[in-house]
Amino acid sequence: MSTDGVPGSAPRIDGLQSSRWDRELFEEWRAGKIDCVHVTCAIWEDARATLSNLGPWHRRLRENADLVVLATSGANVPTAAASGKTAVILGFQNSSPIEDDLDLVEVFHRLGVRIMQLTYNIQGLVGGSCYEPSDSGLSRFGRQVVAEMNRVGMLVDLSHVGEQTSVDAIEHSARPVAITHANPSSCLEHPRNKSDRVLQALAEHGGVLGCTVYPPLIGGADTSLDAWTEIVARSVDLLGVEHVGIGTDASRKWDEDDLRWVRMGRWTHTVDYGASSTRQTSWPVWPHWFETPAPFAELGAGLARRGFNENEVAAIMGENWLRLFTDGFTPLAGW
Amino acid sequence: MSTDGVPGSAPRIDGLQSSRWDRELFEEWRAGKIDCVHVTCAIWEDARATLSNLGPWHRRLRENADLVVLATSGANVPTAAASGKTAVILGFQNSSPIEDDLDLVEVFHRLGVRIMQLTYNIQGLVGGSCYEPSDSGLSRFGRQVVAEMNRVGMLVDLSHVGEQTSVDAIEHSARPVAITHANPSSCLEHPRNKSDRVLQALAEHGGVLGCTVYPPLIGGADTSLDAWTEIVARSVDLLGVEHVGIGTDASRKWDEDDLRWVRMGRWTHTVDYGASSTRQTSWPVWPHWFETPAPFAELGAGLARRGFNENEVAAIMGENWLRLFTDGFTPLAGW
Repeated sequence: MSTDGVPGSAPRIDGLQSSRWDRELFEEWRAGKIDCVHVTCAIWEDARATLSNLGPWHRRLRENADLVVLATSGANVPTAAASGKTAVILGFQNSSPIEDDLDLVEVFHRLGVRIMQLTYNIQGLVGGSCYEPSDSGLSRFGRQVVAEMNRVGMLVDLSHVGEQTSVDAIEHSARPVAITHANPSSCLEHPRNKSDRVLQALAEHGGVLGCTVYPPLIGGADTSLDAWTEIVARSVDLLGVEHVGIGTDASRKWDEDDLRWVRMGRWTHTVDYGASSTRQTSWPVWPHWFETPAPFAELGAGLARRGFNENEVAAIMGENWLRLFTDGFTPLAGW
Repeated sequence: MSTDGVPGSAPRIDGLQSSRWDRELFEEWRAGKIDCVHVTCAIWEDARATLSNLGPWHRRLRENADLVVLATSGANVPTAAASGKTAVILGFQNSSPIEDDLDLVEVFHRLGVRIMQLTYNIQGLVGGSCYEPSDSGLSRFGRQVVAEMNRVGMLVDLSHVGEQTSVDAIEHSARPVAITHANPSSCLEHPRNKSDRVLQALAEHGGVLGCTVYPPLIGGADTSLDAWTEIVARSVDLLGVEHVGIGTDASRKWDEDDLRWVRMGRWTHTVDYGASSTRQTSWPVWPHWFETPAPFAELGAGLARRGFNENEVAAIMGENWLRLFTDGFTPLAGW
């Protein structure tokens, strides 16, 4: 095991980050030797606006080709790592980019998108959000979308999705799904955290939970790294060590306009800050041990201190994600 | 040489068709042993609407995978031919799909689009159309678009483009360009046919003209196949045999609503039928020798009767297109 608690050959994969991207952030990834990051390319955007997010992403990848490389298959991750680069997985935190057009699943897959969350913070065409008072479950269109995602090799993400829609999607999906950034609600009650029922269904169907560092979901900025490792430990107890990863939700360089867009989009004119509620208007303060993603390996060191063995740390730090990505991004036979 | 006048190993490539597509049309291609067709996927559509044309195209290719296969490189054409399928090149007859967003050139390239005409029948953001009374030439945005197309490997098409914009684009492009479907205006004066000046510039810069069978550009449905071969012969005299191909502009199964859309889009409420003028409101009648694309090889037989030798027929029937596509679809180094 390396001195930072992470076995040298194990991949370091962050299951979700969402920032105002620039080269400095990619340099932070390299400083942390992060091998792979799933990045958010759309939150509320429709199809047209998403194109104008993906275009600059492809340009950004090209202009920073010494640091980052697009990953469209699991096999791209070790290749990127071997060349000292971070593999970038493009993803959506909403199904808004496909609007009501089933063909757009394949269109966005062809544009490199490999993960799509079914809903963000409000009800959508495919199902209910974790913040809705009543969750209809996976809609008729939602069933089509999940099946189409299964076909092309686009991973279903349920992080912000409502309880019933999550359970429905897990059962309806022919392939394992992801919760890229959330924690067990048995650690902290929060609409964004996940019930034992959802987490156990996720694991039973081969999925992976990315334990998050997002302050409102861990108990605030004063939560210690050791306390965070207890959240991971509880997750391992619930799901099994093969079904737990990390999705920090690191969010960097956002200004006030970005925050308003991320939280309220166009759907409300009143204050609704989602996970941060109405009480906290500014972006949450992050724990001193994770103010940037650069100390990502410290999460592994913390897990080792908590008593996880070398293989378990490697599984949580990236091997579980890599297994899920490798399988989940492979199109079904015949396509 | 085979009995139909086309050497057995020479590719048969149609530089443009634009139809209401279905399996029957793909069966016509196979009946004609057509190895490759450039198909129109957008005429007036903006970015969003184009996604809903490309999505069904990818579905259509999948559902008819026994007959057709997507071509994204020149090398795909002989592979398709060897497996008894027609290689399909996706193209736009307008730059409307990229709107004012330079990044969308790469976005649509990633969606498989390999040919884009700079303007259709009206002036656009990149330059003037052949029907405009005054042609500004290639605009500032147009220069960016041509350079970006050069970079990603998307072929510039000038068939409906204005005279000055065409000359500017030929000179500004670092790579050879195409006129996929037009004839020399020295054969028939028509705004859509091309001046000697444009054609000679095209050839000097390595481009290819696709001689068309579209009735208004050849003198009407009564024009004989032998008379059409004289148009090809005149083109060869002007450009050289290495710079002439065929782009039939075969247009099948369109209904009256399709015709109105193709001709008038949303830009006029008065009658303006482009190449067919205001006099002919229905779709032009095609010559009896080309009512469908199935007898494509007969065009080669006609060229052989006209006196072209085996190598010349092969060049015109497809080898020139294949050379241009192979080079033109290859991204510049470093991408």
